Amino acid sequence: MNAPLFSPGLRRDVPPGFLQALKERFGDRFSTAQAVCEHHGRDESPFPPMLPDGVVFALSTEEVAWVARHCNAHKVPLIPYGAGSSLEGHVLAVQGGISLDLSGMNKVVALHAEDFTVTVQAGVTRKQLNEEIRSTGLFFPIDPGADASLGGMSATRASGTNAVRYGTMRENVMSLKVVTADGRIIETANRARKSSAGYDLTRIFVGSEGTLGIITEVTVRLYPQPEAISAAICNFPTLDSAVQSVIQIIQMGIPVARVEFMDALAVKATNAYSNLSLKESPLLLFEFHGSPAGVQEQAQLVQEITRENGGMDFQWADQPEDRTRLWTARHNAYFAGLQLRPGCRASTTDICVPISRLADCVRETAAELEQASFPYIIVGHVGDGNFHVLMLLDAHNPAEWHESEQLNHRLVERAIAMEGTCTGEHGVGLHKMEFMLTEHGPDALSLMAALKTAFDPNNILNPGKIIPPLHGADAPLAP
Amino acid sequence: MNAPLFSPGLRRDVPPGFLQALKERFGDRFSTAQAVCEHHGRDESPFPPMLPDGVVFALSTEEVAWVARHCNAHKVPLIPYGAGSSLEGHVLAVQGGISLDLSGMNKVVALHAEDFTVTVQAGVTRKQLNEEIRSTGLFFPIDPGADASLGGMSATRASGTNAVRYGTMRENVMSLKVVTADGRIIETANRARKSSAGYDLTRIFVGSEGTLGIITEVTVRLYPQPEAISAAICNFPTLDSAVQSVIQIIQMGIPVARVEFMDALAVKATNAYSNLSLKESPLLLFEFHGSPAGVQEQAQLVQEITRENGGMDFQWADQPEDRTRLWTARHNAYFAGLQLRPGCRASTTDICVPISRLADCVRETAAELEQASFPYIIVGHVGDGNFHVLMLLDAHNPAEWHESEQLNHRLVERAIAMEGTCTGEHGVGLHKMEFMLTEHGPDALSLMAALKTAFDPNNILNPGKIIPPLHGADAPLAP
Repeated sequence: MNAPLFSPGLRRDVPPGFLQALKERFGDRFSTAQAVCEHHGRDESPFPPMLPDGVVFALSTEEVAWVARHCNAHKVPLIPYGAGSSLEGHVLAVQGGISLDLSGMNKVVALHAEDFTVTVQAGVTRKQLNEEIRSTGLFFPIDPGADASLGGMSATRASGTNAVRYGTMRENVMSLKVVTADGRIIETANRARKSSAGYDLTRIFVGSEGTLGIITEVTVRLYPQPEAISAAICNFPTLDSAVQSVIQIIQMGIPVARVEFMDALAVKATNAYSNLSLKESPLLLFEFHGSPAGVQEQAQLVQEITRENGGMDFQWADQPEDRTRLWTARHNAYFAGLQLRPGCRASTTDICVPISRLADCVRETAAELEQASFPYIIVGHVGDGNFHVLMLLDAHNPAEWHESEQLNHRLVERAIAMEGTCTGEHGVGLHKMEFMLTEHGPDALSLMAALKTAFDPNNILNPGKIIPPLHGADAPLAP
Repeated sequence: MNAPLFSPGLRRDVPPGFLQALKERFGDRFSTAQAVCEHHGRDESPFPPMLPDGVVFALSTEEVAWVARHCNAHKVPLIPYGAGSSLEGHVLAVQGGISLDLSGMNKVVALHAEDFTVTVQAGVTRKQLNEEIRSTGLFFPIDPGADASLGGMSATRASGTNAVRYGTMRENVMSLKVVTADGRIIETANRARKSSAGYDLTRIFVGSEGTLGIITEVTVRLYPQPEAISAAICNFPTLDSAVQSVIQIIQMGIPVARVEFMDALAVKATNAYSNLSLKESPLLLFEFHGSPAGVQEQAQLVQEITRENGGMDFQWADQPEDRTRLWTARHNAYFAGLQLRPGCRASTTDICVPISRLADCVRETAAELEQASFPYIIVGHVGDGNFHVLMLLDAHNPAEWHESEQLNHRLVERAIAMEGTCTGEHGVGLHKMEFMLTEHGPDALSLMAALKTAFDPNNILNPGKIIPPLHGADAPLAP
């Protein structure tokens, strides 16, 4: 219970012969090339790369177990790497060590359409999965913006636009195959829809960001493709009127499948990036799933609410290709935002609050951002109370980084004061560690540290992440 | 990682002065009376009572923390006690120690109707909760048969008849207030609908059966009372035709709120106990939630499927009082079953399998049970693949106990071979410990043991539960 809190720490020395043993075991699938290490030492966060000492391209759970045993025996850090699409510095090798690239583990292992479950290797991406199961009439709803890997999505407890209806990875992972720090292979659960047979190992690993074990296979729930789908855009005169509409829709219990917010600048960026011509005012994107009658009923109720809040008439996107175009554009909002300021790097925020506090939180945040010296956009999975600010920073201007960090800091404190969280879906990585103490308090955090020590006594698994240094004195890394 | 597996173990000695200190701290709210200890040393399982050395009736989280510190300092077992409705021996004081009765902690702490959340003390029961929130238009769906406490339901990861639509405690607990083994008080999460901020402490404690910490407050999700509710009974010629119907309904993705199975003898018992006149053949009880049109649509689809499988016409229960009567009767099936054989004790099974294997599992189980020398009934939350056999045993005949254990053993092995679990919702307690190794394997089980050691190094929290003795040699306790 009194385990020490971990520090991001210094680079560790790799013992002599360690890398050579990997070379002998993996041949061309082990690399220490500068370009390969650079690619694996960065993600989509604004942090500068921190390079591993080498990269293993694993093809099986047994290979992962071999690498874990080897790293554990020599106390060398081991960092799982999926699609590299994390936003908070998750895969940076802050203490050096080995990056374990799982993208080659990209097979569907077992599809049980009759049970609505599928088991895939960790490197399968969400788009690949939906391609491979298309003929079954089922789909996997969780959709972070990037085409992330299922292993990475499990590790960050990802969600996306469908979470308001279908839940997050927390609710949709049924079981995991995991390699432990000392190289043992476990299954966290079976395929029963529910179980009370002991501790919930599955949900211990979901959201653990590679710090407790290495996920090599993921079994997730699938859903029937809805009989009817309808999508609509609704523009609003103000940010507040859009957010108020969402709150009322959620409080009415209308089972919308998606309700996404974009501010005017986000719409403008999306129009430019995705060649659309959406009206450039705050808007909500809706999607309704159900029977034809059910979808019509939901849409009618929602349109009544939006009208009462000053929303304009719905613009419908009923054809599958129109919907795909719209949601692709929404998923590309991050990249669209980057184009608003050529050469910039983005810092994203990710707070989530109870829906009753969402309007206050967005309003206060927007008011502060109006004073910022850099452009920003706000987008959000507002049905969950989750929104993102994308702050577009001059990568060569430390003052802007400092200012953005201050804004993020105040936003997180506002969210926590409103009974919310510092991260709804992106995860802790390096960038949210400083808020863990405020959000959880010292005693809950020390339980997390005790869990980490119990599962990874040599602290080899993605060390220096999630749990902040004991004294919180380390300044955040500047980009 | 190599923590020892725990044994149910022998009674521990309570050190001199230990009980006296409790008396001084709690006065009349501490008791060592035989009757009080007997009441707290048993549950609804067939196991004989195993008495604690004393019982504390706690009224606040701070009192619970005081008791935990006191027990931890003296390495005395501490066993939380809610409604005493567990079925697998969870609250039996196998190593003696203190039973901590939380039933006096029965206040609603904070109702946030606008966010669909409520925070209650651990002793609030599910029926009490629904009474207290009735005026909000919201309800809490999780309904194990008994009027269990929310703390106990969290601790066993309970579910019930609504889980097929609304999920289990796993999906519906948002946050917990927990007292740690050494008497610290933590909150496992905030009220945000989703979060990626570190390890999922909430779901570590959900299902931990009092072995990792003591739950004193529970924040759960609430749901809008559906605009329309409709319930129906459908009789079938055979058990198999009923189960096949359920499988097709689930595989069609029809969002039934409830679908419950009862075999002919369960119906007969229920008729007698609850003064009903249901046709005594295998039946399904359905409930549909939604808009009036949505409910009608669901019911029509379901009726088509049941007809194709030889089901009779639906008998509707549309009036609230008829529905209440029906569901109360279903919830009382356990007690109704007991009346089939006066003076008997029941042993219940609780396996859960993927829906595609449900028909095979029920069929093979029923065939075996037909040879049993005692009466039995089968009921089930079949939409989840979860069913219970209630075996009605002569309490004075060890041969019947032995036979029932053999049947249960084969049933569990069948379920695990079908990728299922030994317990869908009742929990491990004492009775399912012997299956933990088969279900999870030695490495996953050793992670559970490592977690237990990390959170409770002195093994004071409900010791001798969940994690089986290392060598599995201890025979199950006979009733």
